[in-house]
Amino acid sequence: MQNHRHGGNLNATAVKYGLKPQDIVDFSTNTNPLGPPQEIQRNLKKNLSLIAFYPEPDCQTLKEAAAPLLDVSPQQITFSNGAIELIYLAVQALQPRTVLIPGPTFREYEIAARVWNARVKHLKLSPHKGFALDLEHLVRAARGTELVFICNPNNPTGHLLPPEILRPFLEFCRRRSIFVVVDESFLLFHRDWRKLTCIPETRKNKGILIIHSLTKFYAIPGLRVGYGVAHPETIDFLSNFQPPWQVNSLAQAATLLAFRAKGYVRETRRLVVRERNFLVLSLAKIPCLKVFPSEANYLLVKLQEPLSASHLEDQLARRGILIRNCSNFAFLGDNFIRIAVKKRPENLLLLKNLKDIIYQLERKEV
Amino acid sequence: MQNHRHGGNLNATAVKYGLKPQDIVDFSTNTNPLGPPQEIQRNLKKNLSLIAFYPEPDCQTLKEAAAPLLDVSPQQITFSNGAIELIYLAVQALQPRTVLIPGPTFREYEIAARVWNARVKHLKLSPHKGFALDLEHLVRAARGTELVFICNPNNPTGHLLPPEILRPFLEFCRRRSIFVVVDESFLLFHRDWRKLTCIPETRKNKGILIIHSLTKFYAIPGLRVGYGVAHPETIDFLSNFQPPWQVNSLAQAATLLAFRAKGYVRETRRLVVRERNFLVLSLAKIPCLKVFPSEANYLLVKLQEPLSASHLEDQLARRGILIRNCSNFAFLGDNFIRIAVKKRPENLLLLKNLKDIIYQLERKEV
Repeated sequence: MQNHRHGGNLNATAVKYGLKPQDIVDFSTNTNPLGPPQEIQRNLKKNLSLIAFYPEPDCQTLKEAAAPLLDVSPQQITFSNGAIELIYLAVQALQPRTVLIPGPTFREYEIAARVWNARVKHLKLSPHKGFALDLEHLVRAARGTELVFICNPNNPTGHLLPPEILRPFLEFCRRRSIFVVVDESFLLFHRDWRKLTCIPETRKNKGILIIHSLTKFYAIPGLRVGYGVAHPETIDFLSNFQPPWQVNSLAQAATLLAFRAKGYVRETRRLVVRERNFLVLSLAKIPCLKVFPSEANYLLVKLQEPLSASHLEDQLARRGILIRNCSNFAFLGDNFIRIAVKKRPENLLLLKNLKDIIYQLERKEV
Repeated sequence: MQNHRHGGNLNATAVKYGLKPQDIVDFSTNTNPLGPPQEIQRNLKKNLSLIAFYPEPDCQTLKEAAAPLLDVSPQQITFSNGAIELIYLAVQALQPRTVLIPGPTFREYEIAARVWNARVKHLKLSPHKGFALDLEHLVRAARGTELVFICNPNNPTGHLLPPEILRPFLEFCRRRSIFVVVDESFLLFHRDWRKLTCIPETRKNKGILIIHSLTKFYAIPGLRVGYGVAHPETIDFLSNFQPPWQVNSLAQAATLLAFRAKGYVRETRRLVVRERNFLVLSLAKIPCLKVFPSEANYLLVKLQEPLSASHLEDQLARRGILIRNCSNFAFLGDNFIRIAVKKRPENLLLLKNLKDIIYQLERKEV
């Protein structure tokens, strides 16, 4: 079952539709459209002999490399086997009785909370308000909970909670001893991430954990690397629960290579803004589709009748295109899809096929 | 600190003694002396494009490949990010009040237990009895505990608990609802592992978890792969606590390649027996050393005065040879070292240098 709870089921789709995995254009996975940086692709094979040696047990070298990039001390960072490890880690270490999850959002927050028998309190975000959160609702919902998960920008809505709401909310939680996990897995795609990140808050506030994902930004989901940033005492406490050698040798080597890829970082941010704008404008012209504004590298799209997510998913898959049917996100039914922002040729291919399918359906209706 | 609690500190040693890591002969890490199988070394680079794709979230393909080799169903297996993840997983999922750890043994059992605030009860194994365990002592010590860690063969002593003791002990624990983790990370090096493994017990007994390490046997500590075998209901329960995508794409690919390396498996077992016998006989002839019989790919050696582990460790490191000083294992002082069984040329090098150092010391003493 775990196999099908996320996007990116390339192999399953290939088998189902009689395609080769390499022939599928995957809009269901929201990783960097550029693919892994050249720095990794070219140099990782030189590091293959590392498989025979233990990795650094606590990623000390990576912490020292990441610290200046994040403007924190190495003691404020813990690396993990993918960002997802940190979601489970927070719940496991804090063992909250009640967890607040504004949603629709990434499903693993709730899954992790339920593993530890926490009561899950949902705060339903409304599509009519563009899935926005306001401070008053957030504060009211957080009262009486012990842990809050904020995905920022949110997956799958693409909505970004601005600092003028997030910072006072963190301050409210600090006073009430409510721990907040801010999952910024998609924030690095944003040109203004330095202004938007909550990392500076971790200097004085021990009740926050910021999650960043290298998987998403550097398009290396196969390698499993993420990191958490928090106050040194919080990192100390949380990392106690992590077994040593969590990040494998090749993933550690790739991370160091990734940190050098400055041109790739700039190119990624330029491409995401440009192609997102292009997709938003183009999708707006297609009937039956409503696109939500997004600050991330993906777009949430609401489908109008007679279109359904399962129909569109199936029709596109037959044409070798994979999208994310959002019906297994809380509060989203069979009328929402998520599409990744990719490069122009892929985006054009998606648009063309969307139009074909939708116009065909409209003709039938008439 | 984590950096120095295990063997294999190649880089730290290299820096300290002004050596190049590749010039160090490492007897401190007890992985396969053959290095990774050719099947992995030759083919892994063809799989590097996998870094851009999510791994199977639950290693279904690996489970299906491992099941016939272990004569269990895929539902009886869970893969993990190194065997060590399973040690932490067992404690985290079971949350025992008291854990029994016969020792000296691998330190991570105790570290994991303490993370979860379990009381640790030690059962001290005596060097005078060859670190052997008898059923009566084991049963008496286990009463009132909720979880027992048995490392078999034991690290660092090399002692193997025979089935005629282990099986009745598991039966006793089953009746008392005491969960037993049998860490067989080094058992695969044994020619008779099929007769000695506790895997068949997992069919009817839900209170056992068997741990196997691919790290050790296939010499791939950089990749982080291990697996646990238990009753399907136990696997179901434990794997709930594991985040998805625990084993990275390259580690999954390497594991499939490793499973094909039949010749390597045979060669490893032949080499370990032959070289272990050679080392035992050769070390017995050197003054000040007492070697303990071992059923694993390493030997525990007791040093007699004036020799100390720290002196020997330092003197050998100056000559580019790394051994495991056992003074940070419970119940072992500065007079125990552990050496890995390696290939003949390395073993001869170790013996020559040991003799040089010891005879030099003896001359000084006289």
